[in-house]
Amino acid sequence: MDSIETQIDRFFSPRNIAIIGASRRPGRIGHIIVEQMVAAKFPGRLYLINPKAAKEKYHILGIKTYASLKDCGGPIDLAIIVIPAKNVLHAMEGCVEKEIPNVIIVSGGFRETGPEGVKLEKKVLELARKGNIRILGPNCLGTFSPKCNIDTLFLPASTTPRPGVGRISFITQSGSVGGAVMSFAYNEKIGFSKFASFGNAIDVDEGDLIDYLEDDEDTQVTGLYLESIARGRKFIDICRRASKVKPIIVIKAGRSEAGTRAVSSHTGSLAGTDRIYDAAFEAAGVIRVKTIGEFFDVARALTNQPPAKGNRIAVITSGGGFGVMTLDALADYGLEAPELSKKLQQRLHEKLPYFYSVRNPIDLTGSATAEQFAFAMNTLLDSDEIDGIIVIPLFMTPLLDAEQVSQAIVEASEQRKKPVIVVSVPSTMKIRERMHKLRVAGVPAYHLPLRGARGIAALVEYGEIIQRPDE
Amino acid sequence: MDSIETQIDRFFSPRNIAIIGASRRPGRIGHIIVEQMVAAKFPGRLYLINPKAAKEKYHILGIKTYASLKDCGGPIDLAIIVIPAKNVLHAMEGCVEKEIPNVIIVSGGFRETGPEGVKLEKKVLELARKGNIRILGPNCLGTFSPKCNIDTLFLPASTTPRPGVGRISFITQSGSVGGAVMSFAYNEKIGFSKFASFGNAIDVDEGDLIDYLEDDEDTQVTGLYLESIARGRKFIDICRRASKVKPIIVIKAGRSEAGTRAVSSHTGSLAGTDRIYDAAFEAAGVIRVKTIGEFFDVARALTNQPPAKGNRIAVITSGGGFGVMTLDALADYGLEAPELSKKLQQRLHEKLPYFYSVRNPIDLTGSATAEQFAFAMNTLLDSDEIDGIIVIPLFMTPLLDAEQVSQAIVEASEQRKKPVIVVSVPSTMKIRERMHKLRVAGVPAYHLPLRGARGIAALVEYGEIIQRPDE
Repeated sequence: MDSIETQIDRFFSPRNIAIIGASRRPGRIGHIIVEQMVAAKFPGRLYLINPKAAKEKYHILGIKTYASLKDCGGPIDLAIIVIPAKNVLHAMEGCVEKEIPNVIIVSGGFRETGPEGVKLEKKVLELARKGNIRILGPNCLGTFSPKCNIDTLFLPASTTPRPGVGRISFITQSGSVGGAVMSFAYNEKIGFSKFASFGNAIDVDEGDLIDYLEDDEDTQVTGLYLESIARGRKFIDICRRASKVKPIIVIKAGRSEAGTRAVSSHTGSLAGTDRIYDAAFEAAGVIRVKTIGEFFDVARALTNQPPAKGNRIAVITSGGGFGVMTLDALADYGLEAPELSKKLQQRLHEKLPYFYSVRNPIDLTGSATAEQFAFAMNTLLDSDEIDGIIVIPLFMTPLLDAEQVSQAIVEASEQRKKPVIVVSVPSTMKIRERMHKLRVAGVPAYHLPLRGARGIAALVEYGEIIQRPDE
Repeated sequence: MDSIETQIDRFFSPRNIAIIGASRRPGRIGHIIVEQMVAAKFPGRLYLINPKAAKEKYHILGIKTYASLKDCGGPIDLAIIVIPAKNVLHAMEGCVEKEIPNVIIVSGGFRETGPEGVKLEKKVLELARKGNIRILGPNCLGTFSPKCNIDTLFLPASTTPRPGVGRISFITQSGSVGGAVMSFAYNEKIGFSKFASFGNAIDVDEGDLIDYLEDDEDTQVTGLYLESIARGRKFIDICRRASKVKPIIVIKAGRSEAGTRAVSSHTGSLAGTDRIYDAAFEAAGVIRVKTIGEFFDVARALTNQPPAKGNRIAVITSGGGFGVMTLDALADYGLEAPELSKKLQQRLHEKLPYFYSVRNPIDLTGSATAEQFAFAMNTLLDSDEIDGIIVIPLFMTPLLDAEQVSQAIVEASEQRKKPVIVVSVPSTMKIRERMHKLRVAGVPAYHLPLRGARGIAALVEYGEIIQRPDE
């Protein structure tokens, strides 16, 4: 028998797959999954199963379809079940017989519909245990990985575009939120390593997946969307260890009383009070965010910049108002923007005009040059008064050489001494492209002071997490 | 002599303008202003002033340039001064002589550079009082209004694109933030009525401008960016009255201790503690926001939807996770999402399948149809349990007819019974266009639950403001 981790790995890299409930009718879930697997260029064999194939020649997108699992040839690594809930138990029996080790149950109609669904889940799980089968789902989207050429998601790529290859993995309890996260990543040009939607999680849960991703070399940051955690102790134990290896970011919905009520309607699970979750995440070294947008702001920072060694941030700006707003935003996240020492201010004034304020923020004003930005950044990178830098070059300022200042920022970032984050105003296509180039070069570039502050706050928080003594 | 309001109006609708310090050198501030006035199709006469015109033929973009104000013919409504600070006093003398009623001093180099600058400001103001001149600035961008064909901003439109005609007016202390607001509006396709950057505000200040905009028929919402308020009593008195006529939204930077320090470096003014500002805004009926993004989320709601009569919000969604996140976001803004009464739930279940949860959120699930959305919206619009609705149609769901559901939403909104707000996931260009169409039809459509909740929270807040008894 496989080790547990190999078995979970097979949800992402099966050698061949059976799709039980594959359909030739466009728009049907059982059809979309076939389409997406073909579009993902899945290199292994696809065994499509539909009982209609017993009576007639049945092909889906030119792929031969079988009436039953029994008719399929060689061994199968993964079965995807997309048939009505009442028939799932029978399909599972077939998987046991065929000795299929991994099953994704996409079908809904279980716990979320009431007590009968709970009973059915129990029976399915019993059968799985008997057959040494690991189950993802039911009531889920399954897995996606552009590098592994797998895509079991029944959301058509025409309306939910998929991100390219990257270093973020994401695990979600909600399929609709998962789909939104995917399309958000696509639109923001952020790549994904692995994605899993686990739905009702009768077997494989968020803890198992975090545990698996801890050792996954392609994953640099693990993201989560959760509404409830069934096995809290397990989750904390796994995260406490895994969060030292790579950052774990969680969107935990059901923060409010009303939200908690909505969770129990939505998933049929109890959400518990939010303060307990906050304490648990804190203990587990998990970084918590509120929204999908905030998740990506944080993930962008954590996948590109080193953790900060302390919480003292300096701001270098060519627009005074942006300096003020950024200092406010840093305070919102509990970070310090200390006034620089007289000595450091003097050093800055050696090359900067006397009328530039250099207390922090360093306000290079509308007269800022790329050299001045470079000088200010390097002086702060070498100082022990500051743990991280937010640079705010207003690229629309006529006098500033945008190309030169961008280069200077990339060079400052490449020293890897302290986190370097950019905030600017994406006023034109050209400036948005410039900001994208910075991102490609490893410098997180944000459209609003508050979002940049959130990014650097995550680097400070993760710096604290990895410095914690092991228990 | 003009009434004060006519005189302030002339900053936006002068019949003709003198630009003192106009330059033929591209990239110079005195050149960009001429370019922008020409691009704005200013219908009146432009008198360009540059002393070099005394010795040689001097044209800027084909417009004749004069050596001095004295050489110009007819009366002049507005002078824009863009020369070094040390020469401003002399230019002001010319304006007094020429009996120019309005002057925008773009030049910096006053209070923000130290005590000498403060003295200079005093002298300039004395002269203005003598000549009955109203001054905007110094150290400012001046005014912009697409409807009035005026644009005195020295930020080239190639890097700071201007918004089209609309119903939001914006007043700003910081030029760089003002520029960012403009380009943000352009990119979000939000139109502007009037924009003014008042800089050091030695004469006309935020209070005067709010007072003026209160009666401006083209302005539906007034926005402000402030770092400090010099005349607090005046500001509160004006806002208390004006905020009953139209909503006033303020971004007040310098919220934190560090931010306050940055304000004093930036503008040379004292920011005061933030709690005092909070109390003042509350007393004045001003809606406070933190960021430029939040400003537009709020402005979008206030320019399109009626104020709410209470704070009880219902959420109708086709994605359960989004329902949960939206309820959390509503709680973040202090709004209620009450569980619907048994009676109302029964009424909803008369036409909705039994397994749809209708407690609030109304979860229409992935099987949602446009008819079900319409039925749920209309039932809630007619109920006295609810004061506003957030609708979350996930347009990417294959089964949902996006066009039909959009129509149903617009129809619900057009009843004007209660605010109707949309949240969806902008996963594709097609969906973003659909959301834009909703916006054009008067339905604010947001990309994240938190932003939609902010929008409806502003409608609740403004509903409270206009219901307050007059003192």
